[in-house]
Amino acid sequence: MAERPILVGIIGYGKIGTGTYKTLLDNQDSIDRQVGRPVRVKRLVDVDWSSPRPVPIDIPSEMKATDADEVLTDPEIAIVVECIGGTEPALDFVLKALRSGKSVVTSNKELIARHGKELFDAAAERSLDLMFEGSVGGGIPIVRPLKSCLAGNRISRIMGIVNGTTNFILTRMSQQHVEFQEALAEATRLGYAEPDPTNDVEGLDPAFKLAILASIAFETRVQVDSIYREGITGLGARDMEYAGQLGYAIKLLAIGTEIDEALELRVHPTLLPADHPLAAVSGPFNAIFVRGSSVGEVMFYGQGAGTMPTGSAVVGDIIDVARNIRSGATGRVACTCFEGKHILPIEELETRYYLRLRVADRPGVLAAIATVFGEEGVSLASVLQMDASGESAEIVWLTHTTKERQMQRSLKRISELPDVHEISGCIRAEAEE
Amino acid sequence: MAERPILVGIIGYGKIGTGTYKTLLDNQDSIDRQVGRPVRVKRLVDVDWSSPRPVPIDIPSEMKATDADEVLTDPEIAIVVECIGGTEPALDFVLKALRSGKSVVTSNKELIARHGKELFDAAAERSLDLMFEGSVGGGIPIVRPLKSCLAGNRISRIMGIVNGTTNFILTRMSQQHVEFQEALAEATRLGYAEPDPTNDVEGLDPAFKLAILASIAFETRVQVDSIYREGITGLGARDMEYAGQLGYAIKLLAIGTEIDEALELRVHPTLLPADHPLAAVSGPFNAIFVRGSSVGEVMFYGQGAGTMPTGSAVVGDIIDVARNIRSGATGRVACTCFEGKHILPIEELETRYYLRLRVADRPGVLAAIATVFGEEGVSLASVLQMDASGESAEIVWLTHTTKERQMQRSLKRISELPDVHEISGCIRAEAEE
Repeated sequence: MAERPILVGIIGYGKIGTGTYKTLLDNQDSIDRQVGRPVRVKRLVDVDWSSPRPVPIDIPSEMKATDADEVLTDPEIAIVVECIGGTEPALDFVLKALRSGKSVVTSNKELIARHGKELFDAAAERSLDLMFEGSVGGGIPIVRPLKSCLAGNRISRIMGIVNGTTNFILTRMSQQHVEFQEALAEATRLGYAEPDPTNDVEGLDPAFKLAILASIAFETRVQVDSIYREGITGLGARDMEYAGQLGYAIKLLAIGTEIDEALELRVHPTLLPADHPLAAVSGPFNAIFVRGSSVGEVMFYGQGAGTMPTGSAVVGDIIDVARNIRSGATGRVACTCFEGKHILPIEELETRYYLRLRVADRPGVLAAIATVFGEEGVSLASVLQMDASGESAEIVWLTHTTKERQMQRSLKRISELPDVHEISGCIRAEAEE
Repeated sequence: MAERPILVGIIGYGKIGTGTYKTLLDNQDSIDRQVGRPVRVKRLVDVDWSSPRPVPIDIPSEMKATDADEVLTDPEIAIVVECIGGTEPALDFVLKALRSGKSVVTSNKELIARHGKELFDAAAERSLDLMFEGSVGGGIPIVRPLKSCLAGNRISRIMGIVNGTTNFILTRMSQQHVEFQEALAEATRLGYAEPDPTNDVEGLDPAFKLAILASIAFETRVQVDSIYREGITGLGARDMEYAGQLGYAIKLLAIGTEIDEALELRVHPTLLPADHPLAAVSGPFNAIFVRGSSVGEVMFYGQGAGTMPTGSAVVGDIIDVARNIRSGATGRVACTCFEGKHILPIEELETRYYLRLRVADRPGVLAAIATVFGEEGVSLASVLQMDASGESAEIVWLTHTTKERQMQRSLKRISELPDVHEISGCIRAEAEE
């Protein structure tokens, strides 16, 4: 292949930068042939070249740089790969790359979720590519399938397990009957959880991903702050156990639904029927369900994070950009947020609920609670009385479909009943009536 | 949108033609905006306009034609969608379209599997697109993910349930404990099986699909005749039952594996551990597992056939071609069969085997069989003796990993033993040792 290579600069040589560079090296011949021109990394930028990398690779010293400008101002470099994460200085770097006429590949979910509009506008202005397949679901193909393969569908729902850390924790809680803190400690020990796990366990990471997926699926720029969000820190091993007895698994789901041109967007723990394909997704795996007007339901499953899986997604994007450069067609797939669909407040949600209450073990308590539910229009599907040990009893309810507003009002009133000690759990349930 | 529309001609207005046209109509505004130019069907061709369609749509009479040339020779039409199936006259039509400078979309698995090289050469000669996402897995995105998202991976394995008819039959046999013929009759009644189900139940349809997937995954043009193939007609309800007792499900799998630059390609019933994600794929659904060097394992799941799901895939391709036309970039992703990897004969296969034998219920029979296995180097993992009723007994074995050649030699010798009445089943097993 005598043709002039397409040159790539990678900014950030941590996990994802390493996975990207290794994937490009490992499969170089095939990639060159698929693109029709050689694709070569010219320069790697990192502020720290001394710390060990997840995969050791010998890098010629002339390729190493510490200043991003050595990539951003190099006129030979056509594709900039942003692998530093976070929004600062990633945003500046990506904007500078686009304004210098370079296409960009990133797997930075926060960057795309928070600054998507500004970035896509900058890319469109110069007909450049801005690709971000790795920002959701690691190596799982989902962005390109939504933007191309399923582009003829009107998407009515997207529902996924998009955070491997919390799915690992929930799987452990469910299978080993341990509490959240113990499962989190194990996740940290095994490297599935960051030293500061807040963004994962509080549901912010899945909210970034839902913002990205929903923006594509519903053709509306979704801000992460408009997504209702609950993490998994309030879940107990008992909830997993009781849910299991009722025939459900508990998963942290990111759910986007279009209802009459409006969007319902939420991240929270959810009861899923045990035979639902997402219920079987365990450990650090991710899976995303999509319901489209023509395709029906499709699911995408795989490793949602990690050095090499994310590297796979980033390199897929690099290949796609390189093909566009070769064909003179960068910018051929642009942002598709044409609509400004209204986002429904969580109070409008209609779903089923699992409730766990600790109450005095005394006649009349159940009746008092049931009366409140009745008055508020909440209809109960089943009730389990558990663990009646001496003074208190644990009661688990599953409701029929109810409005969130009615449920919240009921819970407030119930929490004020004298014989109710604690509302230990209230978890939304995806369940057929 | 004042720009000149990109015009489409659809040849064949049966199930897939209808699903395609309806999907284009239903989501027209969104498709136009995603492409950046209007995409319109100018003409639909079918030899018979009188019979009822799966979805009734009013079609203006000036759009209806009975002669394919009304599409193929129309200089305004830029995209030809082939929806007639089979190879004659589809091959002629597609070649004529490409030679007339029109890009082509098809979901015709037999056409792509049998004539891929000729067709891709014709497309490449004029830098045109030939897209075929719907040829495998109906609406499930798999072709484009392999050619783009996962293009940076070296694929070592692709394994899928790619025929909904047989998966429906096997699910029924397993869940309702009915025999093949009864399950087939039900599949026919429900429209899941064709009046002549030979291509499905004999495994030819999945072999076409494997030829397509393997050609992409392994960068080698795979001929369907080089794929080892066994259908499901020899399976009994008892096999499903015994497999279940051993912790397995039986699925008709299409499996392609690369081993030291050579390919192992096969379609046959397979025992899968009950906790494998493919084991849970039931009814008419399809799912495809892919193992890549960077991505690890990913799975794609959905409805593998049908009017609207296949229409979804075809329209996704139309949108992609239209974007290429708009960007002057048709032909940007061409055929990737750069290699000519050797295809291993089935005798070289190494796997585990499930065996079901009917033997005389007499001392020494087991010993005689075990002696043959021992002499042929076949090691047995477990044995179940079932149904010893009077004169004969049924024995079920699961072997350790064995070469196909040794297994065939053993079975030949065992079938000649005087007390062996019948070898009722021999099914390969995907199972960890």
